[in-house]
Amino acid sequence: MADQWQEAYDFAVQVARAAGAVIRKAGECEIKVQTKSCTVDLVTQTDERVEKIIIGSLKEQFGEGTHCFIGEESVAKGEPCILTDKPTWIIDPVDGTTNFVHGFPFVAVSIAFAVNKELEFGVIYSCLEDKMYKARKGRGAFCDDEPIQVSDVKDIHKSIIISEHGTDRDKQKVKKIFSTMQKILCIPVHGLRGSGTAATNMCLVASGATEAFFEIGIHCWDIAAGAVIVKEAGGVLLDVDGGPFDLMSRRMISANNMVIAERIIKEIEIFDSVRDDAPIQKK
Amino acid sequence: MADQWQEAYDFAVQVARAAGAVIRKAGECEIKVQTKSCTVDLVTQTDERVEKIIIGSLKEQFGEGTHCFIGEESVAKGEPCILTDKPTWIIDPVDGTTNFVHGFPFVAVSIAFAVNKELEFGVIYSCLEDKMYKARKGRGAFCDDEPIQVSDVKDIHKSIIISEHGTDRDKQKVKKIFSTMQKILCIPVHGLRGSGTAATNMCLVASGATEAFFEIGIHCWDIAAGAVIVKEAGGVLLDVDGGPFDLMSRRMISANNMVIAERIIKEIEIFDSVRDDAPIQKK
Repeated sequence: MADQWQEAYDFAVQVARAAGAVIRKAGECEIKVQTKSCTVDLVTQTDERVEKIIIGSLKEQFGEGTHCFIGEESVAKGEPCILTDKPTWIIDPVDGTTNFVHGFPFVAVSIAFAVNKELEFGVIYSCLEDKMYKARKGRGAFCDDEPIQVSDVKDIHKSIIISEHGTDRDKQKVKKIFSTMQKILCIPVHGLRGSGTAATNMCLVASGATEAFFEIGIHCWDIAAGAVIVKEAGGVLLDVDGGPFDLMSRRMISANNMVIAERIIKEIEIFDSVRDDAPIQKK
Repeated sequence: MADQWQEAYDFAVQVARAAGAVIRKAGECEIKVQTKSCTVDLVTQTDERVEKIIIGSLKEQFGEGTHCFIGEESVAKGEPCILTDKPTWIIDPVDGTTNFVHGFPFVAVSIAFAVNKELEFGVIYSCLEDKMYKARKGRGAFCDDEPIQVSDVKDIHKSIIISEHGTDRDKQKVKKIFSTMQKILCIPVHGLRGSGTAATNMCLVASGATEAFFEIGIHCWDIAAGAVIVKEAGGVLLDVDGGPFDLMSRRMISANNMVIAERIIKEIEIFDSVRDDAPIQKK
């Protein structure tokens, strides 16, 4: 039973790499034709196409009906976003769509797998960097097959912290985001960064390049694979209020250790966000 | 005369690549020995060592005395930071020292060359990404020998803007920096980013990954090479108040075009910074 999901894990790595190649090619064509001013269609098309490739491959391999799928594009089209005990794939086909449109160098394919509501493995392929991050529960975290681990920094003043401004431009939320960032910078820390993708941000925590990443408003498909990778690299995951990490809550801090996580949590100004698994409201 | 500085340009590319290899190796050793909590010495040592390698190589090649040198480390030790009409090398041996310490993936070697106070060429080697950016006045800009050009976006709402929080934690300055960023995000733009190195940020503008990068408090060695690369990639350089770009003023906006630059300038809250070529004040 220990190796029950090894085949699925290996297959996820293959699928992520293939999906990343499609994204990379789409980006190259895009850049060549110089149509950056009208790229909404391109993003939607690429997102949908890559998600279809990923889910199609997984269904073909593991049989339709036995596994469930939560994907950014399918949820956007009204499919349910509920984590059950069934084997469930949680997929973000293109994490960092804004980066993708602009050719900013962080775009990731994120594939996670959960059974009995517990994450079994996560795979993140940072396709422009050509870096394959992966981790399986209890087996460690890797980048291109080399083991990775979180930073050993415990002194907050020697940390780099990552967060993002998100895509919501609601004034009250934006104000809280900037206020939080300003307070963290002035702790002081070494610096603030943001790659523009939650998946890559979590890999940067897992590989020790930064001490923590937090965000409110992210979705389960942005962070599911990253959660396994950070944890297996020796890091910690929490709610932004210090409570236990909840994949569906749309809020999370991942950090190299509890000392850093708890210090950052003190500064975070929390705002409301609707859970990923909330019942769909009738308009 | 047209090819007068070709040899110097080619040599600068070689030197930047060799310097980058030294930085990369220092970073790898650093990461292996897990001493991230006490890295100040490592940074200083690497900065000094790399600057010595670069300036040493250039002096050996072009003869001591005929060329002048402005380098981050030598200026820190009290050497003058004055641009004269003489052939002058402007060098940042390790741009992104915080990133370097943390293994965050943007660390650059920046080498520029000016004659008669005018920049002749610039070379930026992003050594962890292994990307060589270069440009010579009137000859176009390149990344790994492929021509690069700025983005064609004129609609500010479709732009990504880069800035940095800097290293100064003066409260009034920090407040202005965050206020500016918040106003720009809410124009709204697609997003804000920051790589942690001015040199790389300028390469991201030059290669079209972002529309603009601005900062107050940067030094001439952070932006001299980038200035040539952005301009040769079709971009523009201005003071943050909209006036002409001044290499020694410690403030700059580089953008893909004037439409984007002027729109961003409207939001920038300017704060004072002492010019790079200001007479040294007695304490």
